[in-house]
Amino acid sequence: MRFTVSSTDLLKALTAVAGVVPSKATMPILECILFEAEDQALRLSATDLEISIVERLPIQLELQNGKEGARRVAVPARRLLETLRALPDLPVQFSADESFNVTLTTDQGHYKMVGFDGADYPALPELAEAHSLPVDAALLRRAIQKTAFAVSKDTLRPAMMGIFFQVLPEEGRVVATDGHRLVRLRLRELVSETPLEFIVPEKATALVAKLAAQLDGTCTIRVDERHVAFEMGPARIISRLIDEVYPNYEAVIPVENDRRLVVDRDAFLSAVKRVGLYASSTTNQVRLTLEPDHVEIAAEDIERASEAYERVPCAYDGEPMVIGFNAGYLTEVLGNVDSDEVVLEFSSPNRAGVVMPHEQAEGEDLLMLIMPVMLNTYA
Amino acid sequence: MRFTVSSTDLLKALTAVAGVVPSKATMPILECILFEAEDQALRLSATDLEISIVERLPIQLELQNGKEGARRVAVPARRLLETLRALPDLPVQFSADESFNVTLTTDQGHYKMVGFDGADYPALPELAEAHSLPVDAALLRRAIQKTAFAVSKDTLRPAMMGIFFQVLPEEGRVVATDGHRLVRLRLRELVSETPLEFIVPEKATALVAKLAAQLDGTCTIRVDERHVAFEMGPARIISRLIDEVYPNYEAVIPVENDRRLVVDRDAFLSAVKRVGLYASSTTNQVRLTLEPDHVEIAAEDIERASEAYERVPCAYDGEPMVIGFNAGYLTEVLGNVDSDEVVLEFSSPNRAGVVMPHEQAEGEDLLMLIMPVMLNTYA
Repeated sequence: MRFTVSSTDLLKALTAVAGVVPSKATMPILECILFEAEDQALRLSATDLEISIVERLPIQLELQNGKEGARRVAVPARRLLETLRALPDLPVQFSADESFNVTLTTDQGHYKMVGFDGADYPALPELAEAHSLPVDAALLRRAIQKTAFAVSKDTLRPAMMGIFFQVLPEEGRVVATDGHRLVRLRLRELVSETPLEFIVPEKATALVAKLAAQLDGTCTIRVDERHVAFEMGPARIISRLIDEVYPNYEAVIPVENDRRLVVDRDAFLSAVKRVGLYASSTTNQVRLTLEPDHVEIAAEDIERASEAYERVPCAYDGEPMVIGFNAGYLTEVLGNVDSDEVVLEFSSPNRAGVVMPHEQAEGEDLLMLIMPVMLNTYA
Repeated sequence: MRFTVSSTDLLKALTAVAGVVPSKATMPILECILFEAEDQALRLSATDLEISIVERLPIQLELQNGKEGARRVAVPARRLLETLRALPDLPVQFSADESFNVTLTTDQGHYKMVGFDGADYPALPELAEAHSLPVDAALLRRAIQKTAFAVSKDTLRPAMMGIFFQVLPEEGRVVATDGHRLVRLRLRELVSETPLEFIVPEKATALVAKLAAQLDGTCTIRVDERHVAFEMGPARIISRLIDEVYPNYEAVIPVENDRRLVVDRDAFLSAVKRVGLYASSTTNQVRLTLEPDHVEIAAEDIERASEAYERVPCAYDGEPMVIGFNAGYLTEVLGNVDSDEVVLEFSSPNRAGVVMPHEQAEGEDLLMLIMPVMLNTYA
């Protein structure tokens, strides 16, 4: 195949696709991007065998010495991207001959590399009888960003290694948990007549969020028994679903937490961060003491004989109580709240705390859960 | 000691000093910053036993419960800096008791850590009968920045592991080389009645450049037989000198390179960068072919069956010639030239090339040398 294209356009299309290319693959051809000539278009694709991205770029095919050359060629991704990144915006002629020799030619020079026969590239999955779900790109991105931090990295609990989408006729619920904290984001505008439930691997959601950032308007989620596809403008991300039953997360959300704390989010978050620096590196534990008009945050690191203490004004309507949390988890959960004030609800020192924004954003309902830790006593 | 200071002022003073604190030291006390109470001032210092930094911050000492507390205490650098970085700008009370317990107190809380007896901290070197050399801070920074990249990392050639300062009555020369390339920067305004020659370790020059960036006006270099001190506003950097004889660099600078190439610096540099991507990872070699009106840049990587070629217009007055260079060294040397056009002078393919800006900056004369590599032939 031969065509001429702006270096910037080609780089942009390749950058999206390259996100999925493994940097070290057991099969060298997986470190390539597949170029396929279609009528009036170039189809670029890549896969790590779990997630695939396909993108189309309009081109005009040219003959090379009267011949067509290779119609499918797998091009080494890293070298190709490095070259295009180093070029200014100028027309580049791409050509691949029958022996899969790839040449980029510009006004000033040329760059040659050897590709692979595109026929040897693994086939990408196709979805059969999929359900379609239109969703605003910005909303999809927000749903992923608000939940991804809580996804589990524990390979022994594969169900929790992805984001759970539960799309019902009346609302959508996007959920992630690792057993220590849980996020549930309810969305008024993510709905489906046919109830749909699927778990998307974390890596795929990260790629979707990245592409969604560059997209205005609507994208489409298509889902069948085994795969999900995100159709995003000129690009499509296809991922295998996590074939597991998601834990019954609603059962663990406490409904009768009657001790309610309202506190300035920035003041509380930065105090937890500072005091957390003094937490033991083993437990990373901070202790909250709830009083009617203030919350005390304290940490000790006996090994290094250091400690810290801060007091933040708050409104609290329950009995005074002491409860311990992992400083890192508490920081992440508080950092995930957008509103000026944050609400924390507790029942007892050994039961999950509920964290939510004081003012919910339009069309959504964000609820987070954080498990307490057993407090060491230093008496 | 006890005093109250703005968190921002203390952080700023500590950041400069902390640059020298080793992150992992054999003696734990070296991971500290030494706080010493003087009249009306706090003396902060740190050392890695080769380089030291001292800084003074004006303070008002306070009594604590009628007592003075420790007048010298070594405070763990990392924890202290992390805490100050996490605080907004507010008054912080610092106190250290007789047992070297250190407490930072703010309106909202406190942070405690255990320091060490300042008497156990290594003594900092003092310069005896030093020569003084005033120098503009911006000029000193530029001298370091223009030469540091060529400093050798080879511990077998210790003389070349620093920047060589040769300060004469008529001009100063700042030199660095690793045997593959050499930079000589001649400065009209760095002069001394008594000729001075000294080699400053690379790490010390990096710290000096960093502090010089924050300084307006003049600083003072003081040098004796064994040490150099850079007096920079409230801070002083003291470094051991490299006690070696610097190689006779003037002897290697070719004076009769009669083949002269003048080329646009940006066009040439970016072409070398692009073609260099296709150089063999073993040799990293690019080949320049000099012709009267253009220079060709080529590279081959036989292992990956790839190659690249570019042609850049130039003015060249010699016989056509082919010469090979390490792409990385050539990129660094070209990148060190500020002027729009760069001059390269050659004599033969196995002799050093000279690189210099077409227009020298006011008051200086920059000359770089780059050794060619033996070309493999692929015929």
